[in-house]
Amino acid sequence: MEHIWKQIDTYAKQWIKQAGTLIKQSFSKELLIQAKSNPNDLVTNMDREVERFLVGKIRETFPSHHIIGEEGFGEDLESKEGVIWVIDPIDGTMNFVHQQRNFAISIGVFENGIGRIGLIYDVMHDELYHAFKGHGAFMNDIELPKLEPVQVKEAVIGLNSTWVTPNKRIDKEVLTPLVRDVRGTRSYGSAAIEMAYVAAGRLDAYITMRLSPWDFAGGKVIVEEVGGTTTTLDGAPLDILTKSSVLIANPILHSEILNNYVKRDQ
Amino acid sequence: MEHIWKQIDTYAKQWIKQAGTLIKQSFSKELLIQAKSNPNDLVTNMDREVERFLVGKIRETFPSHHIIGEEGFGEDLESKEGVIWVIDPIDGTMNFVHQQRNFAISIGVFENGIGRIGLIYDVMHDELYHAFKGHGAFMNDIELPKLEPVQVKEAVIGLNSTWVTPNKRIDKEVLTPLVRDVRGTRSYGSAAIEMAYVAAGRLDAYITMRLSPWDFAGGKVIVEEVGGTTTTLDGAPLDILTKSSVLIANPILHSEILNNYVKRDQ
Repeated sequence: MEHIWKQIDTYAKQWIKQAGTLIKQSFSKELLIQAKSNPNDLVTNMDREVERFLVGKIRETFPSHHIIGEEGFGEDLESKEGVIWVIDPIDGTMNFVHQQRNFAISIGVFENGIGRIGLIYDVMHDELYHAFKGHGAFMNDIELPKLEPVQVKEAVIGLNSTWVTPNKRIDKEVLTPLVRDVRGTRSYGSAAIEMAYVAAGRLDAYITMRLSPWDFAGGKVIVEEVGGTTTTLDGAPLDILTKSSVLIANPILHSEILNNYVKRDQ
Repeated sequence: MEHIWKQIDTYAKQWIKQAGTLIKQSFSKELLIQAKSNPNDLVTNMDREVERFLVGKIRETFPSHHIIGEEGFGEDLESKEGVIWVIDPIDGTMNFVHQQRNFAISIGVFENGIGRIGLIYDVMHDELYHAFKGHGAFMNDIELPKLEPVQVKEAVIGLNSTWVTPNKRIDKEVLTPLVRDVRGTRSYGSAAIEMAYVAAGRLDAYITMRLSPWDFAGGKVIVEEVGGTTTTLDGAPLDILTKSSVLIANPILHSEILNNYVKRDQ
């Protein structure tokens, strides 16, 4: 690993942990009450505070790097050139407010459009999923094994019931047969957590219809590092400058879902 | 609290913690590999081992008590007379195998059909949800506040996508408008965990179409102790000798779901 990337990796891990501490400290008794009376404010405050912290650290240490962040402290980029940090300070904001768990900080670091570093920090479980392209993916210190092939009938997939009821993004009939054929479906309300679960083999696939780059940037690097396939629901590559649907799974299952379900009627 | 019930409560908490330790000990590296190659066996083994442990303790200590358990070490009861322990050694078996988390041990202790003690132990989070009828509900040492009224549009509910796609238990159209109107849906794959989440305010409701008494016995006591309403999806009381659908929520939300969605077409 080049020295500069080793340095970026070390700092990114340090900062995401520090950001997690900021969030945990916010769970004082007072803040919890405030959360219940005015949930959206708390989310905004913590989202903004965490992103401001991360953006500050990156700009100070790597002034030539670019940043895309959910809360707008980053830039509005049109080019993938150079080094780009793609940040979601709190992925799963509704869970953050309602549950004080099942949310994550997500960071992806890309170089000329290629994912180099992926980090997803499940703060309340103190589980840091991390990958450096070509050097394996880990949950804390445990290396994640390559994904094993799984067939639809044995698969547990992350899929929210929204996508099999009338909605703006997809005909509800497209994924309905998949729900029937899989072993089970789950929905955790955080794309980053669900992508980390796919990487760790706890879910076999994750499907959703509308994600922003900061929702999937970190997970894309981690899932690909264990051999998973990450595309839109049409099978196109995920683009870190573009919102899109997401289909993530091991290659066999990915292909089965894409060909036998999504493209069945086309 | 009568002395005998204080004693039952103390033992039940002690045994459920010990049972949790049994399960955690099974997560050695070898067993994990075994789980992946032959998931159903592992579940059966641990399910059976945990139930056998609990049934042994109960019979030894309270020989006059009755037991209903998922794995068949209990009895086939037709009467609700006396003291009945209703046990699920591992609720969320698919999660146990696929995720090694998001499962729970559930115990309800009933006297002449009335729930006295409810315990749900989220083993991997080391979170014991417990209630004694009339004495409050707790998560470990923290007392759970009474549920606050929540309207459908602000609610996050536990509902699996199965119930809004063609299935044997319910017309998929019945709950579809509810998915549209709520703030969000989640699905964790363990009835006990989802009931504990309702009790803790992390979910506002939980709906499912087929539970056995051991799936809901512990949760029923805990949820009712924080002021929640627990019925079948028809609004009938839950019966600890009968499989049924389940609708659990705070009273306002429960009534709104029952009247404006479930019974809308009737």
